Amino acid sequence: MYSDRVRLPSLLDKVMSAAEAASLIQDGMTVGMSGFTRAGEAKAVPEALAQRAKEQPLKISLMTGASLGNDLDKHLTEAGVLARRMPFQVDSTLRKAINQGKVMFIDQHLSETVEQLRNHQLKLPDIAVIEAVAITEQGHIVPTTSVGNSASFAIFAKQVIVEINLAHDTNLEGLHDIYIPTYRPTRTPIPLTRVDDRIGGTAIPIDPAKIVAIVITNQPDSLSTVLSPDDETQAIADHLIAFFTREVEAGRLSNNLAPLQAGIGNIANAVMCGLIESPFENLTMYSEVLQDSTFDLIDAGKLRFASGSSITLSARRNGDVFGNLERYKDKLVLRPQEISNHPEVVRRLGIIGINTALEFDLYGNVNSTHICGTMMMNGIGGSGDFARNAHLAIFVTKSVAKNGAISSVVPMVSHVDHTEHDVDILVTEQGLADLRGLAPRERARVIIDNCVHPDYRPALLDYFERACAKGGHTPHLLREALSWHINLEESGRMLVD
Amino acid sequence: MYSDRVRLPSLLDKVMSAAEAASLIQDGMTVGMSGFTRAGEAKAVPEALAQRAKEQPLKISLMTGASLGNDLDKHLTEAGVLARRMPFQVDSTLRKAINQGKVMFIDQHLSETVEQLRNHQLKLPDIAVIEAVAITEQGHIVPTTSVGNSASFAIFAKQVIVEINLAHDTNLEGLHDIYIPTYRPTRTPIPLTRVDDRIGGTAIPIDPAKIVAIVITNQPDSLSTVLSPDDETQAIADHLIAFFTREVEAGRLSNNLAPLQAGIGNIANAVMCGLIESPFENLTMYSEVLQDSTFDLIDAGKLRFASGSSITLSARRNGDVFGNLERYKDKLVLRPQEISNHPEVVRRLGIIGINTALEFDLYGNVNSTHICGTMMMNGIGGSGDFARNAHLAIFVTKSVAKNGAISSVVPMVSHVDHTEHDVDILVTEQGLADLRGLAPRERARVIIDNCVHPDYRPALLDYFERACAKGGHTPHLLREALSWHINLEESGRMLVD
Repeated sequence: MYSDRVRLPSLLDKVMSAAEAASLIQDGMTVGMSGFTRAGEAKAVPEALAQRAKEQPLKISLMTGASLGNDLDKHLTEAGVLARRMPFQVDSTLRKAINQGKVMFIDQHLSETVEQLRNHQLKLPDIAVIEAVAITEQGHIVPTTSVGNSASFAIFAKQVIVEINLAHDTNLEGLHDIYIPTYRPTRTPIPLTRVDDRIGGTAIPIDPAKIVAIVITNQPDSLSTVLSPDDETQAIADHLIAFFTREVEAGRLSNNLAPLQAGIGNIANAVMCGLIESPFENLTMYSEVLQDSTFDLIDAGKLRFASGSSITLSARRNGDVFGNLERYKDKLVLRPQEISNHPEVVRRLGIIGINTALEFDLYGNVNSTHICGTMMMNGIGGSGDFARNAHLAIFVTKSVAKNGAISSVVPMVSHVDHTEHDVDILVTEQGLADLRGLAPRERARVIIDNCVHPDYRPALLDYFERACAKGGHTPHLLREALSWHINLEESGRMLVD
Repeated sequence: MYSDRVRLPSLLDKVMSAAEAASLIQDGMTVGMSGFTRAGEAKAVPEALAQRAKEQPLKISLMTGASLGNDLDKHLTEAGVLARRMPFQVDSTLRKAINQGKVMFIDQHLSETVEQLRNHQLKLPDIAVIEAVAITEQGHIVPTTSVGNSASFAIFAKQVIVEINLAHDTNLEGLHDIYIPTYRPTRTPIPLTRVDDRIGGTAIPIDPAKIVAIVITNQPDSLSTVLSPDDETQAIADHLIAFFTREVEAGRLSNNLAPLQAGIGNIANAVMCGLIESPFENLTMYSEVLQDSTFDLIDAGKLRFASGSSITLSARRNGDVFGNLERYKDKLVLRPQEISNHPEVVRRLGIIGINTALEFDLYGNVNSTHICGTMMMNGIGGSGDFARNAHLAIFVTKSVAKNGAISSVVPMVSHVDHTEHDVDILVTEQGLADLRGLAPRERARVIIDNCVHPDYRPALLDYFERACAKGGHTPHLLREALSWHINLEESGRMLVD
């Protein structure tokens, strides 16, 4: 039984219940779990851990690839299991605990977590819990719908628990490309020069003696809840595609554009969908998460190859894609997030990075994470990995939120995740601001003219002109710089009469 | 005459006066000039251009490697020549014009300027003006005391003016390693895996037909004005060396540490000097500018090899080093700043990056550039290139400035150049804060306990505790967050009674 999934026979006697496996996780441990953009997370063991903690309180430091599905962060938070959490999350219950200071959240560039582990700058995981479709004859782990940080967690941990999830088809095997950078000071270049290069093996190579438990599960990933484009996301997509067209005409991009990265969410999805009807051909992706639009683009004959770290689909595409994976398999690869997001590779390939901003300011600084400078939303994710070294660092957002109570363009952002040095293009449904080669005062004019909602344009222009009269390379009136956020905190609207 | 310096005989008839050469620069042109950290800048042609502009007004966009010596930015500003300037400057006259909005300054990561040129995202230079010790038999340019952006400027420009500076000894030839990344989409890895690897040629390879003028000069570089360590910079150095010692004991660094990068200035110089008496051996540098301390460390037998983009020395070391270059030549290499600062190489080698902060905040965000969020000092320089991908991103500053009127540690920085995601270690003369793996609230405690001047500690702790009571992942009181800067602007002191 299960010998097709656990192909090293000596491991078959490690099969046990999730509760038994979870009992290996002790109070105070650091635990590394699979899971990236709600794909491929270990499911049964964390759930059993949350159950156990209700009777027998315990705290752990939990590292993952990125966000977890199946409400695991919610259940772990409710059970009081999380002392520390890194490097990303999207759960509203956990977010509340983070903002109350109950869970210490370390918000990291997604490419950097395992680098810091490798250098012993973060505590190594005591135990790793990795979802797999199979364990090979060599005792190596074949991941499921994400790679994330799973490979390095399994390599660094003293003990590894594997969840074999029967809900994932074994045809996922062969999709992954597991490459681990060598140690400094003798590290060699990452030998990846094209998005479709395969530079590693298809399974996570560990000593099988480290596998202390195998849990059999049968539970699907959470489905994506991505929304279809609306008028505003469609307008953002249209502005961006018109811009790409101009770049091709100017000879700065070819008709294949450049490898595309798109953050998670409705706007990025709308932009990618917009490419279906575009004149561009033979596109490629070098991104984190592959979403519905990736497969829509492949089906439309527009996308030649997609490299990611996970696949997260909505109900519309999930059964169709995973039920017909052989149709896509030669056009896909899933890599460790250290490689999908690696600055070396991003700079070499010249990625077009499209990520969502929470707000941006007159001078092009972007806030991706903090509401009113204090309350964490999700985390920076991979946006910094891509924006810093991209050929084009593009940030998109609707120009207003909360029925117009909030402007996404402000005098000064309340928190900076991407500095003016790193932002090339800003897009709202109002238009597109091309900041390349501009000084701060020039950027402000372009942003005001193109991106700001008309309800906020006069106030922002007034602020800018009065700030310029006061002077400075980056003109500001410090007494007013954060006043829009103060208004929002105090009265629920950024502009008050 | 000059045939030892201009070895391609057909070029000898291009020798002309600086004024004649400067006449090739027309109003509205984009000009790329050599010069990095006040080393190796073209001297006579820009001076002649400034002279000419006094009678015949003209404006240019000027790109350099980094800062220029010999007051050239001052003279060009006074003559009204600069419409646009990038990517860095240190001149007080130019700074004033930038802050008045008279010169459009584009403050860039030093590794990125030529990448943006290569991709036609910035306007290519019409003309390049490059200081050289010689032109080879092939018509290739041998730079002087800096490489900076000179190679790419000369390659991209339609016309090249070469200043042969007789004040530089020809023994500089052979010191340089000119490697230019290949074009996307077929770019290959930068084949540099050790600080002492040589991966290119020793001269800038251009078609000699592009050389339209050769000007013979005989004027030295400006001398560095670096100060000897004082009590506070010595205390910063001591804290950092004690930290390195603990890192070695913990097995996170070897006794050779890791390749060192040190920003320009008195504090970084003090830290490097501190290493002379340290227990560490066989050190290496992979930095931008090589300063007095580099040669002091070599002389002390502590430094095995130094890679940089320029050499800038004080009166104490200048004659001695350049007069005895053969003693150092096998321990040095000068590279294009794109390579000395390249994220790919910085991440691969695992640099220890030590840069100066203007101010930092409770949560580890660093401002390197803007006084009170508005007035530009110098620019971000290479600090972002190194900090983002460093093994250790270290920022140093004295805890107070202006006789205590200013605290370098503030509730919220007034401008962000380096985000909380990118900063590992903060050091003042008060002590060292190790932020690795800490959540924002934890970082604040460590910074308050270790880095803040006692005169400001109670006020900062009070702010933090009241902000925590209000809540948030990164607690702030927006009405007070910038109040220290407002006080400074309005009353000349950050704290008023």
